[in-house]
Amino acid sequence: MKMKKDKIIIIGAGLVGSLLSIFLAKKGYTVHIYERRSDMRQEEMSAGRSINLALSDRGIKALNEVGIMEEIRTIAIPMPGRLIHNLDGSTVFQPYGNEGQAIHSVSRAELNCKLMDLAEQYGVNIIFNKKCTHIDWDKSEVKFENEESTASEIIPFELLFGADGAFAATRLQHMLRHDKFDYNQYYIDCGYKELTIPSGTHGSFLLEKNALHIWPRKEYMLIALPNMDGSFTCTLFFPFEGEKSFDKLDNPENVQLFFEKEFAEAISLIPDLVEQFFKNPIASLVTVKCFPWIREDKFSLIGDAAHAVVPFYGQGMNCGFEDCLVLNNLIDEFDHDWNLILEKFQYLRKPDADAIADMAIDNFIEMRAKTADPKFLLQKKIEAKMQAKYPELWIPSYAQVTFRPDIRYSEAFKNSRKQEAIMKEIMIHPHIEKLWETDEIIEMIYSKIQEA
Amino acid sequence: MKMKKDKIIIIGAGLVGSLLSIFLAKKGYTVHIYERRSDMRQEEMSAGRSINLALSDRGIKALNEVGIMEEIRTIAIPMPGRLIHNLDGSTVFQPYGNEGQAIHSVSRAELNCKLMDLAEQYGVNIIFNKKCTHIDWDKSEVKFENEESTASEIIPFELLFGADGAFAATRLQHMLRHDKFDYNQYYIDCGYKELTIPSGTHGSFLLEKNALHIWPRKEYMLIALPNMDGSFTCTLFFPFEGEKSFDKLDNPENVQLFFEKEFAEAISLIPDLVEQFFKNPIASLVTVKCFPWIREDKFSLIGDAAHAVVPFYGQGMNCGFEDCLVLNNLIDEFDHDWNLILEKFQYLRKPDADAIADMAIDNFIEMRAKTADPKFLLQKKIEAKMQAKYPELWIPSYAQVTFRPDIRYSEAFKNSRKQEAIMKEIMIHPHIEKLWETDEIIEMIYSKIQEA
Repeated sequence: MKMKKDKIIIIGAGLVGSLLSIFLAKKGYTVHIYERRSDMRQEEMSAGRSINLALSDRGIKALNEVGIMEEIRTIAIPMPGRLIHNLDGSTVFQPYGNEGQAIHSVSRAELNCKLMDLAEQYGVNIIFNKKCTHIDWDKSEVKFENEESTASEIIPFELLFGADGAFAATRLQHMLRHDKFDYNQYYIDCGYKELTIPSGTHGSFLLEKNALHIWPRKEYMLIALPNMDGSFTCTLFFPFEGEKSFDKLDNPENVQLFFEKEFAEAISLIPDLVEQFFKNPIASLVTVKCFPWIREDKFSLIGDAAHAVVPFYGQGMNCGFEDCLVLNNLIDEFDHDWNLILEKFQYLRKPDADAIADMAIDNFIEMRAKTADPKFLLQKKIEAKMQAKYPELWIPSYAQVTFRPDIRYSEAFKNSRKQEAIMKEIMIHPHIEKLWETDEIIEMIYSKIQEA
Repeated sequence: MKMKKDKIIIIGAGLVGSLLSIFLAKKGYTVHIYERRSDMRQEEMSAGRSINLALSDRGIKALNEVGIMEEIRTIAIPMPGRLIHNLDGSTVFQPYGNEGQAIHSVSRAELNCKLMDLAEQYGVNIIFNKKCTHIDWDKSEVKFENEESTASEIIPFELLFGADGAFAATRLQHMLRHDKFDYNQYYIDCGYKELTIPSGTHGSFLLEKNALHIWPRKEYMLIALPNMDGSFTCTLFFPFEGEKSFDKLDNPENVQLFFEKEFAEAISLIPDLVEQFFKNPIASLVTVKCFPWIREDKFSLIGDAAHAVVPFYGQGMNCGFEDCLVLNNLIDEFDHDWNLILEKFQYLRKPDADAIADMAIDNFIEMRAKTADPKFLLQKKIEAKMQAKYPELWIPSYAQVTFRPDIRYSEAFKNSRKQEAIMKEIMIHPHIEKLWETDEIIEMIYSKIQEA
């Protein structure tokens, strides 16, 4: 029995909810979005909240498909590589990919506002200040409470999407009334705090504009992404507890001393550093995995609500946008039969979401444990040599994830494990420190790929 | 600042809640238990619900400590080993441990009733039909709804224990209002269904009384534990889906045929098999891990509410009882200072709970994948030989977990991994199939232990 639907309700007008609504509206559906918060377009942007995201090829592909990438490009700053700031003040530029490849710094708020504007242009109705407090799965009804009054209302649905983020209310409602629901949320021992480097005179950039800046310090790091107005949004990733931790930076002197020692450059660029440090909140970093995402032809989680990831691969938003694209293609493939669409959606996306979640955690661990390890750096040099010689055979995982939407996350993860296994064998080769520049080593890797 | 408490509230009058209340009452506390269900002692026991549990040394140690093991012994049937029923009708008896060691079949309902009786004798107040629907952590208040009316009440607490089982309401309330709460629940792909083998004439046992019966069939199995009245409670562990699964046993003919082929003996002992099969529910099997368990000096999860495990090591109840014993000892060690008691409680018990959860899953996997593997059976023979020669050096994991409460679960898990690593090296020894009975192999294992 084919199940067509006319009206679709989306919970959450964030990045994924807004983009999803555009895809669905373009397919002819009547779409209503219910959003817990007030309309961010009506509000002054508060300082320290201009979170930046790195838009890359998976996200771009989805925005292109729906025809809005050119609009978005006007608010995106290309970052073709990372600029590493060493403790001694020296810098190294590392390109992310080949000539012409880049990731793009976009302001979450600006992007979200633009997506909401576009959604409304496509006829989507966004209703604000509506908090989802209960879902009756038997009756197919959502209960909303008004965030600004005590009023509540009950809305029936034919098809509901939970796009309400990492702490989704829809997911909780789904979980509470689902037999055999697998659920996993775990936090890493680092949190983050945002700080702003203001623009220079006449909106000039005080650091290189076209780069993602990183001050790596092993157990913690500071990063900075450029904003359209010449400022940079910095993020300090830092342990909650321990010798050097948020816990210990509990007074202005400690903060000042710590930054002077570890991030001298930042101190010089952020005059009100200490003030910002104590004003801005410490946020935590969670991974969420769950299954199933769907209920028959009536409901699906999507984006962070289905699969929150830590930010160390820069893929949270990109993965959510790719969800929308995959769903969009399935609407065509199964001609609006939502039983088949949702079943296939979770079948396809669950392994990919798991893969990017695990890769993001691995990257966090690698970043901390290995960036100062000479053997690890040697391995990266050998891999770069291999890639230069056999660019189609040896694509670094970062490039597969970031610039190759044609390779599924789960495939990229498998490939990266294969490459790691090969490199593990290579690195125990006697005298590898001396032999690594010889062709012999590269040919050994080549033959191992052929065997694998 | 030492935090003494007078009154303690426990949510859940199950096995762990009831035993915990006895420990606390004996330490001089005023204890109230709020239980969602009605008083099971007032009700006729319904058929098919007489679940059996295997009480072993960790549980017994806790019951001894509180002085009630002799009472419990009157309702426990010793099972010194498992009786394996092969497909061809042959049987093999495998002792669980040494002479005199046994696990004990007890009825969950009988044990629970006895523990509630004893709790009340120690002055514990058990209040039934009270469902915990909300906890206000700022005000330290629990809200209960009456299961039999629409009345609700709010009870303040100084110290609260969540002993409300694998699907604990207290844990949900804890989770919903806790920053950085790690949570993991996952289901295995097998469920279970209970069936009863009635007693023979004059309460006689139709199978060997003093054994845990197992009909292993690789992808699934039937087990049976004796009851005091001569009956046996059987449990069929069976995949939900697939070629042979609950899914496929959807009509009387299929059930009849399946049991005739796989469990011919059961068919002959359960005259109303098909009727029971369709009347009794299919239950699922969940593992729950979470952290933290506590909130300052005010709250702790305990038992299944903190750490639900699958039943394949027979340790769920024993682990919960051990929780109570550990907590009891900490009350003395820290002289009723609940800040220190709860902090140390979760510090000690979290790794042990994780270990038994993982061992139980490993046992499930091992049981399915390996019991028919000749290499695995050979390994078990070699280990038995090793154990006979060096009984203090090579204690099988099952014995460590079941009969050695002096070895923590986390230690037993580490030891078992060490043993597995050693045996993995031994089993790739050339001609192991011929050499295994020689002393050479045993001495190789001995020297590997010395190195480890």
